[in-house]
Amino acid sequence: MSLVVVGSLAFDTLETPHGRRERIIGGSCSYFALAASFFTQPKIVAAVGEDFPQETIRLFQEKGIDIQGLRIEQGKTFHWEARYGDDPNQRTTIKTELNVFKDFSPELPPEYQEADLVFLANIDPDLQDDILTQVKKPKLVAMDTINLWIQSKPVSLLRVMEKVDIFFANEEEVKMLTKQTNLIKAGKEILRQGPSWAAIKKGEHGALVMGKDFIFSVLAHPCEEVIDATGAGDSFGGGFMGYLDMVKSISEKEIRKAAVYGSVLASFTIEDFGIERLKSLTLPEIESRFLEFKKRVSF
Amino acid sequence: MSLVVVGSLAFDTLETPHGRRERIIGGSCSYFALAASFFTQPKIVAAVGEDFPQETIRLFQEKGIDIQGLRIEQGKTFHWEARYGDDPNQRTTIKTELNVFKDFSPELPPEYQEADLVFLANIDPDLQDDILTQVKKPKLVAMDTINLWIQSKPVSLLRVMEKVDIFFANEEEVKMLTKQTNLIKAGKEILRQGPSWAAIKKGEHGALVMGKDFIFSVLAHPCEEVIDATGAGDSFGGGFMGYLDMVKSISEKEIRKAAVYGSVLASFTIEDFGIERLKSLTLPEIESRFLEFKKRVSF
Repeated sequence: MSLVVVGSLAFDTLETPHGRRERIIGGSCSYFALAASFFTQPKIVAAVGEDFPQETIRLFQEKGIDIQGLRIEQGKTFHWEARYGDDPNQRTTIKTELNVFKDFSPELPPEYQEADLVFLANIDPDLQDDILTQVKKPKLVAMDTINLWIQSKPVSLLRVMEKVDIFFANEEEVKMLTKQTNLIKAGKEILRQGPSWAAIKKGEHGALVMGKDFIFSVLAHPCEEVIDATGAGDSFGGGFMGYLDMVKSISEKEIRKAAVYGSVLASFTIEDFGIERLKSLTLPEIESRFLEFKKRVSF
Repeated sequence: MSLVVVGSLAFDTLETPHGRRERIIGGSCSYFALAASFFTQPKIVAAVGEDFPQETIRLFQEKGIDIQGLRIEQGKTFHWEARYGDDPNQRTTIKTELNVFKDFSPELPPEYQEADLVFLANIDPDLQDDILTQVKKPKLVAMDTINLWIQSKPVSLLRVMEKVDIFFANEEEVKMLTKQTNLIKAGKEILRQGPSWAAIKKGEHGALVMGKDFIFSVLAHPCEEVIDATGAGDSFGGGFMGYLDMVKSISEKEIRKAAVYGSVLASFTIEDFGIERLKSLTLPEIESRFLEFKKRVSF
């Protein structure tokens, strides 16, 4: 099978209780693709400026990531600056410089149009919709979103939701979108909008995957130190979708395992700043933590 | 084996988004004992006033609860009034009338002094300490506490903690007590204070049981409607301790199952006001939900 991800590549300037990092590599696409690369060879669609490091592009290639869909545009790469408090779930955006990302209008290379699995990261829902018209016969389409689009483009968002199979979002976003305070009700409401599954991310409380007739709960790894929570959600998506692409199945059984691999990948990402931990991570480490997850809920 | 619980019996006046109930039966001891009664015959130690309904005492007896340690004092029963917001974790105490509970000075009947398992519900830590001197050779002592004692009697609390095997508390209380923002660190700190296990209640996110060398995560049941969250924590304790008393073992394996039964009992309690759901609950319903819990985390 093949997996296409459309999202952002960025420079992130981050401040957490564990330190400050200036202009390190970030963006939903980086985290997603690196996490997925442990299971498959994801194809990325993104745009960067001329200032984006060749070294990172080489890293992507070394990890088996297909960069045919990566456009290098005149200008600067998207830059995002944020600060985290003691609670890693609380972050404040300090600055957003869209730069070349402002005119991002993704065009899928011919090979990408045959994708089996598509992940639409948290970009403008109108772009997400446009991408879907370019994919010929996907077996599974997943989308993510953020508060910004729920507030500014609810109609476009609902239109895309009708066309996707898995809806990824945070707990607060799902509640905001559905105007429900109870998460189970909110999840059911999401399923009424179109998706067959909702993958609801709950930070340190793990995630909930709801289908038409099942609810699966996956834990977060018990971290003592969250160094940098950036990219946890995208790593979750990458591990989730990458695993499904590898096993070539979207049964309930595999979706459960996919969610656990997603949570495992997210748990590694937050152990260091940016993509650092994903760079050094190995498959045996992933498998070992997967078994820990199993042990931690068995009774 | 035998299980003794020391705690409160009360009238509760409660307002939740689902309605208002005046002077219904409440108190940690009611919830704990009714939850435990599905597995064993708990012995209660508590004091009520002359206004406490005979009907409730008969209910306790019908459920196999040993009421030898129940004292009926001159005066009125403890009365607590609270209001819950849309978020069932947010509650405001409106009124606390201690009444006969003010001079509560528990004396254990001779038979109770031989108890194998003891649960000290969230009463004054000095009383908890006093009770421990009255129990001869308990195999397992558990305690619960609340913010009030963490703030007003930290020294007494730490003295009791040194003597108990399982420490029960809410996530916020554990963080407050240990001055840690990370829950795993907070739990480890609790274990350094004496207890072999910490059972940390996280409301809709379930619970965490930490031992010297394991962490077990138990989920909460996915409730769409929390009618009344009162007593969820005490029902968790009652299911937990009642199960351990029944199986006569405190191995890691049984502690994991105990925590799941605790979470199952709590999930039923919040389906109706006060002790109503515990009154109508049956063992087959408990077993069926226990299996649901298993299915919901398996992968």
